[in-house]
Amino acid sequence: LVAFCSVAAALNNGVGLTPVMGWLSWERFRCQTDCTTYPDTCISANLYKAMADHMVSDGYADVGYEYVNIDDCWSTKERDASGNQVPDPERFPEGVKGLADYVHGKGLKLGLYSDIGTHTCGGYTGMEGYFKQDATTFASWGIDSLKVDGCYANTTIMNQTYPALSAALLSTGRPIIYSCSWPAYHGQLPVQYKLMAKHCNMWRNYADIQDRWSSVAGIIEYWGSANGVDYDDFVNVAAPGSFNDPDMLIIGNTPFTTTQEQTQFAIWAIAAAPLLMSNDLRNMTAGSKEILQNTEVIAVNQDRLGRQGRRISSEANGAQVWKRDLFDHSVAVVLYNSNENNTMTISFRFEDVGFSNVTQLHIRDLYQHKDLGTFVESFTSKTIDPTGVQMLKLTLAD
Amino acid sequence: LVAFCSVAAALNNGVGLTPVMGWLSWERFRCQTDCTTYPDTCISANLYKAMADHMVSDGYADVGYEYVNIDDCWSTKERDASGNQVPDPERFPEGVKGLADYVHGKGLKLGLYSDIGTHTCGGYTGMEGYFKQDATTFASWGIDSLKVDGCYANTTIMNQTYPALSAALLSTGRPIIYSCSWPAYHGQLPVQYKLMAKHCNMWRNYADIQDRWSSVAGIIEYWGSANGVDYDDFVNVAAPGSFNDPDMLIIGNTPFTTTQEQTQFAIWAIAAAPLLMSNDLRNMTAGSKEILQNTEVIAVNQDRLGRQGRRISSEANGAQVWKRDLFDHSVAVVLYNSNENNTMTISFRFEDVGFSNVTQLHIRDLYQHKDLGTFVESFTSKTIDPTGVQMLKLTLAD
Repeated sequence: LVAFCSVAAALNNGVGLTPVMGWLSWERFRCQTDCTTYPDTCISANLYKAMADHMVSDGYADVGYEYVNIDDCWSTKERDASGNQVPDPERFPEGVKGLADYVHGKGLKLGLYSDIGTHTCGGYTGMEGYFKQDATTFASWGIDSLKVDGCYANTTIMNQTYPALSAALLSTGRPIIYSCSWPAYHGQLPVQYKLMAKHCNMWRNYADIQDRWSSVAGIIEYWGSANGVDYDDFVNVAAPGSFNDPDMLIIGNTPFTTTQEQTQFAIWAIAAAPLLMSNDLRNMTAGSKEILQNTEVIAVNQDRLGRQGRRISSEANGAQVWKRDLFDHSVAVVLYNSNENNTMTISFRFEDVGFSNVTQLHIRDLYQHKDLGTFVESFTSKTIDPTGVQMLKLTLAD
Repeated sequence: LVAFCSVAAALNNGVGLTPVMGWLSWERFRCQTDCTTYPDTCISANLYKAMADHMVSDGYADVGYEYVNIDDCWSTKERDASGNQVPDPERFPEGVKGLADYVHGKGLKLGLYSDIGTHTCGGYTGMEGYFKQDATTFASWGIDSLKVDGCYANTTIMNQTYPALSAALLSTGRPIIYSCSWPAYHGQLPVQYKLMAKHCNMWRNYADIQDRWSSVAGIIEYWGSANGVDYDDFVNVAAPGSFNDPDMLIIGNTPFTTTQEQTQFAIWAIAAAPLLMSNDLRNMTAGSKEILQNTEVIAVNQDRLGRQGRRISSEANGAQVWKRDLFDHSVAVVLYNSNENNTMTISFRFEDVGFSNVTQLHIRDLYQHKDLGTFVESFTSKTIDPTGVQMLKLTLAD
């Protein structure tokens, strides 16, 4: 067992062996830098400290959320005389290092953001030409994760630039989750999953998530089909240390229903996706918080086998069946009604979800927190609302 | 990382997370109990001590072989007055416990054999009716592995008896590799992979291996097709802690050629199969030993991702391509010429073995121990002898 534990992860950085869990500012707080008018929601140390506070005080840390991640607009727009990146002095008066100390003091980890090109998407300093210097700086500040965006960059050489930055981060000796925005910026270039997996702990594959159901539904559809890319390669690349990233959890934001929030969380869990919330932890409904802290669903997401679940059927009426193999030889299943107008029930046979020749299974509902009983040969869901799911765990009857 | 390491294996016994490596007496030494006529080859403590000695002195232990496993015919044919199993007093004068102490003293582990039914296949004492008592006895002797055969048993209830024995072994608290002979004895009953994986670290799926090429070739064919069973389910059940077992390595025995010995080792490696030699370690040719101690091939077998490789093509002329995804995102490939008469070259495209949209790959030959260079789009093998292989590791060109 010692040998098993001591071998390095794919990226040799030893972190991210299960999907990252935490919080990331972008989708909810964007690039608001006016702290005079918007003191509580501007991108500043105070915002991240508040989120760190609530991650601990409101129970998120207890169920596994760990990373507090800065996104765009934290720096000044120019490097200093030595060529170093500089945190905005008014919004981050103690620097990133001071914020890292605060976050670490809470038992959490701090993530930072930059860009593989000359500028970030918001026009702030990018890393082009400064990979080693910035990696050294960021490591000295004590960051634990780095999301690297792809604006203002030469997309045709991302298969060289992203790996080069990976090497620079590794050479710092500090374990840093490396989140790549590649192939999301890859344009029409073909996707090289093995290359991403070798150099990144996670990578964005598809469009930015937005606060509307069609955005979430579009991402789910991509995760169910890979949209023309080889679906086996897309699914199989996921493994401990390397995960496809469908973007942030937007649970807790308008305009989603509880039904839809359950759906996003269920699909992200079965997809072995990073669970990075982008919401306002100071203003969460009990319902949203309950979804985000559902330990049974989180356990599926964090399953150590690290296999990405896959969609195994998608009917014209919108009925979808997804399944994921788990380490204990149980199987997680999500029955997803993608139809936005009609309720429906969805059925599957046990052999469809990997239980060859198995007659009886115990089935548990992970949102109802209830054992539904022992079933024979097949299962038919409850009535599922439009855009809703039923999430199950299937275990062999002894 | 701590959480990752401390979670239990599928079987909750914490062992067998990569395929077991070691030695097992059956195929080579069978049930010879006449130690007067055959003092050096009879089933006795001396035989296992000699193998343990050679596993250490001849370098096998250094490359990962660890288990010295007793097979049939070690016990008396009756239990004692307390119902306990009894090692043959003449052939195991210090008992199994004494042998275990010796083997442990060498830094190795000891495996034992029994049967889920009333008798072993050789007619010795079986475990039926004594699961808990025998499990307690075996654990007290200090065994580290138990192969449980399926002769003289009710095959229709093996899906209950094997799990019941699994529970009995677990309850001893001693980590014991549990090797099931199920579904090899399952007769015409359908295969329930999930059930085996839940209760066994490894399990025999197919006929006993024998000292003839047709036996090895038949097993390879089953591992390439599952012969009518769902091939995806057969392959996907393999994971850390649970492996399909194609039976022993018979490298070093007559009548195999070096070519054929390389083939067995390559296919067993790519199949994530247990590597249990059944040969005479006192009389090995340099060629056989070199194959068995090929650390590059062993590394493929022991890859921590624990995914079983699969055959991806099989041509009418006998050309086969097998591939296995590895933890570092390289891919192992075996090109197998199953034709027994003709030499051939075998080609594959990179996209066929999981490298979507990858143009260049470094390719290394794991038997030649040689980097073959960087290739574009596809690869064509050397001329492969009948029943031979070329085994490769494919790595992304940085």
